[in-house]
Amino acid sequence: MDDTSLIRQHISDLLGPQGCLLAPDQRQPYEKGARYGDGRSLCIARPASVDEAAELMRLCASEKIRIIPQGANTGLVGASSPDRSGLDVVLSMERIKGVTDIDPVDRVVQAYAGTRLSDLNQALKQHELYFPIDLAADPSIGGMLAANTGGARLIRYGDVRHNVLGLEALLIDPPGQRLDLTNRLRKNNTGPDWKQNFIGSGGAYGIITQALLQVHPLPQQCATALVVPASLQAAALLLRDAERNFSDFLSAFEGISHNAMQAVLQHIPSIQAPFEPLPPYVFLIELSSARPRSADFDLEKLFGAWLEACFGDLILDAVIDKPEVLWRIRHAITDSVRQEGKVIAFDIAVPRSKLALFRDEAIALLEQSYAGVKVYDFGHWGDGGLHFNLVLPPHLADDYPPQRIHALRQEIYDLAVHKYYGSFSAEHGVGPFNQEFYERYTAPESQALAARVQTVFDPAGLLGLTRFGTAP
Amino acid sequence: MDDTSLIRQHISDLLGPQGCLLAPDQRQPYEKGARYGDGRSLCIARPASVDEAAELMRLCASEKIRIIPQGANTGLVGASSPDRSGLDVVLSMERIKGVTDIDPVDRVVQAYAGTRLSDLNQALKQHELYFPIDLAADPSIGGMLAANTGGARLIRYGDVRHNVLGLEALLIDPPGQRLDLTNRLRKNNTGPDWKQNFIGSGGAYGIITQALLQVHPLPQQCATALVVPASLQAAALLLRDAERNFSDFLSAFEGISHNAMQAVLQHIPSIQAPFEPLPPYVFLIELSSARPRSADFDLEKLFGAWLEACFGDLILDAVIDKPEVLWRIRHAITDSVRQEGKVIAFDIAVPRSKLALFRDEAIALLEQSYAGVKVYDFGHWGDGGLHFNLVLPPHLADDYPPQRIHALRQEIYDLAVHKYYGSFSAEHGVGPFNQEFYERYTAPESQALAARVQTVFDPAGLLGLTRFGTAP
Repeated sequence: MDDTSLIRQHISDLLGPQGCLLAPDQRQPYEKGARYGDGRSLCIARPASVDEAAELMRLCASEKIRIIPQGANTGLVGASSPDRSGLDVVLSMERIKGVTDIDPVDRVVQAYAGTRLSDLNQALKQHELYFPIDLAADPSIGGMLAANTGGARLIRYGDVRHNVLGLEALLIDPPGQRLDLTNRLRKNNTGPDWKQNFIGSGGAYGIITQALLQVHPLPQQCATALVVPASLQAAALLLRDAERNFSDFLSAFEGISHNAMQAVLQHIPSIQAPFEPLPPYVFLIELSSARPRSADFDLEKLFGAWLEACFGDLILDAVIDKPEVLWRIRHAITDSVRQEGKVIAFDIAVPRSKLALFRDEAIALLEQSYAGVKVYDFGHWGDGGLHFNLVLPPHLADDYPPQRIHALRQEIYDLAVHKYYGSFSAEHGVGPFNQEFYERYTAPESQALAARVQTVFDPAGLLGLTRFGTAP
Repeated sequence: MDDTSLIRQHISDLLGPQGCLLAPDQRQPYEKGARYGDGRSLCIARPASVDEAAELMRLCASEKIRIIPQGANTGLVGASSPDRSGLDVVLSMERIKGVTDIDPVDRVVQAYAGTRLSDLNQALKQHELYFPIDLAADPSIGGMLAANTGGARLIRYGDVRHNVLGLEALLIDPPGQRLDLTNRLRKNNTGPDWKQNFIGSGGAYGIITQALLQVHPLPQQCATALVVPASLQAAALLLRDAERNFSDFLSAFEGISHNAMQAVLQHIPSIQAPFEPLPPYVFLIELSSARPRSADFDLEKLFGAWLEACFGDLILDAVIDKPEVLWRIRHAITDSVRQEGKVIAFDIAVPRSKLALFRDEAIALLEQSYAGVKVYDFGHWGDGGLHFNLVLPPHLADDYPPQRIHALRQEIYDLAVHKYYGSFSAEHGVGPFNQEFYERYTAPESQALAARVQTVFDPAGLLGLTRFGTAP
């Protein structure tokens, strides 16, 4: 037996045949990412318990084998895929799952990392509670913490970080050591808040095994409208006005560009055009409340009156319709745009007051230097997030070799980060896909700090492919 | 000149006479803490700018002089006071102050660390915005971040951490290095979120110089009531019901015990008894909204109807009154209790579903082992925080030497932390006052991690007196 075979044998002995996938066709779904990342692993390790995961980490540490933590493999930056060496072990958390406690008075749910968001919400439903992170995908809870997922309702509930009360993580140094931060307190200022280090750092500092999450009462009424603003500058004022009128129950303020809307109508014939002709931009605005509709508290009525008051100045047109009708449009965008050609996807944020300026300037930049590329942007205007997605028409493929697409990408990021103090990765995190942009846009002082903190959490570089700092 | 005189001279040369206080009577207000801490400093350094603060840090680092960071010196754990050696430099941030930007569309304020909360809110008021951390004291913004202040409206707005979008900090290694994390993004997942390390760690990892805070629309209507629950168990159900009915605008759920209420009535004659006889516990419940009162959205009306519906089962009695009338009672507690005798103050949290159980058991413990000590508890029941404050009647002073008070304190903490998975410091943080309890209640794995992270941020131990980990 060579070394590789021996290690596979050890892992298989430790985790059993269900816990160690070796056959290429079994491994493949874990080796390819949802958008980026496509490698080859030594094996897929699927421990059935936290103890088994800790054992696996000890084994890998002693053999100096790199571990690629993976939740539901729905990440969009390649962080959960192995490289092409065939030497990494993918540690899938999918078998360490289940909701272990729901306390309706505390409004807390405790779950293992491998639990899917949909299963968590299914379990919460009977208590009329939910975890309000709204996403197209169905990620694992551990992955959501590691990526600090955002989504469409951040404006009301905050991101994942805002809703984590506690967690448990396994460290790689000392290997497999359990760090028990599983409290469920809303106030607990007893030294550094270590859980923050594991949230949003993509598994680079440890592997999250359990989470205690603050959950929220299920909305009992909801009012949604598609709104045509007088201009994108007016949209910013509309957002401000909506927050003053409805700060307490404004739960989404999503933007959809003309092209994104047209793609939806083109590819999903059952969706009717909400406006004809289609305006340059529309906004999906949602109000919701855990308080049921009643004569003295009716969100649709309040919403309707407000929209009417905004007509002329800020709003040119509006359609009030059922949430499921309007959200269907919003959720159909990504797939519809994909059918228009090769997508160049962006996950940008700028201060929300600057979204319109950024967008204008980015479009001008494309017109000047990247002819033929079409803009299909949409996103979370309420929190400054913009998926400034582009489509390269098939007939231009030869004009856009990878280096040119890379140059385009970098020019758009430069604009967002350098001119508008924005982010090159608003909600998808950092992984091999955008590691080079992390290095380009992160202050050298932060990278130097990261390099030193790396030596504390993972001195041998065994957790994942992402590197936040190189040795000082 | 001896060494000490020489260093004083250097600091005075660097910062000028306004920036370096040497006379004992000038130093004294900075050397004594608001509740704990009373030492002697080398001098009080009051730099006028971030650059001067950085210069001071370089000077102190080269001379191996410890720096005690201080905001408005309103902290309650002794973390901003020097020790008795006379060798520490107190670094007061009070001159590095001022609001530098308010953006109403972004709902963001940028301010220097020395800015007082009251001044921040004064500046925000003209934009109908506010920073909703409700406290008795008037701390500096830098101090609020370093302590991760909580307060009475956490249930609606979260703690300080939840509202920090960006900050700037000065590191001690390399000395005086600026770490620029001053973005104002709501979504920015580009590697580890370094700002989290400086929030709630009391200045141990760096000195916060600027903050970018998410602010909120000023409430335009507010409804408050004092409510007598059927029991403390019923109060938990009342809280749950209030959140389901008013999750979107429930902004306070504060508990006041019989003794705390009686102390207020005793010492502030102008406050009328809200109930006669006084019940064992009352709750101050507040609803508020940025949406003005109107016929179709009237919080008082909604509140009144809900209270009526809860009568009998959950509520025995209730008084609806103006917010300023009811909050005056709540805010008078601390001072009134102090007039009852020697206060043994607590800042505990347990899961909010367990508050009643914890309280019952803690009172039984006192009755059994600490006769004569009276309980005057009150606190933030909405988030599990309880100021389980005790008063030692003067005639028992001899029975309670410091060691016995210490034993009492530890028994209460043991109960909260070990039995109820609670916190020994919910919102006041860790400092010399409770460092020993930090060591007692913090998992050894966390302390070992802290020791290693200490070597990254402050290898020579020059920032503050608090130590989160001893060398591994």
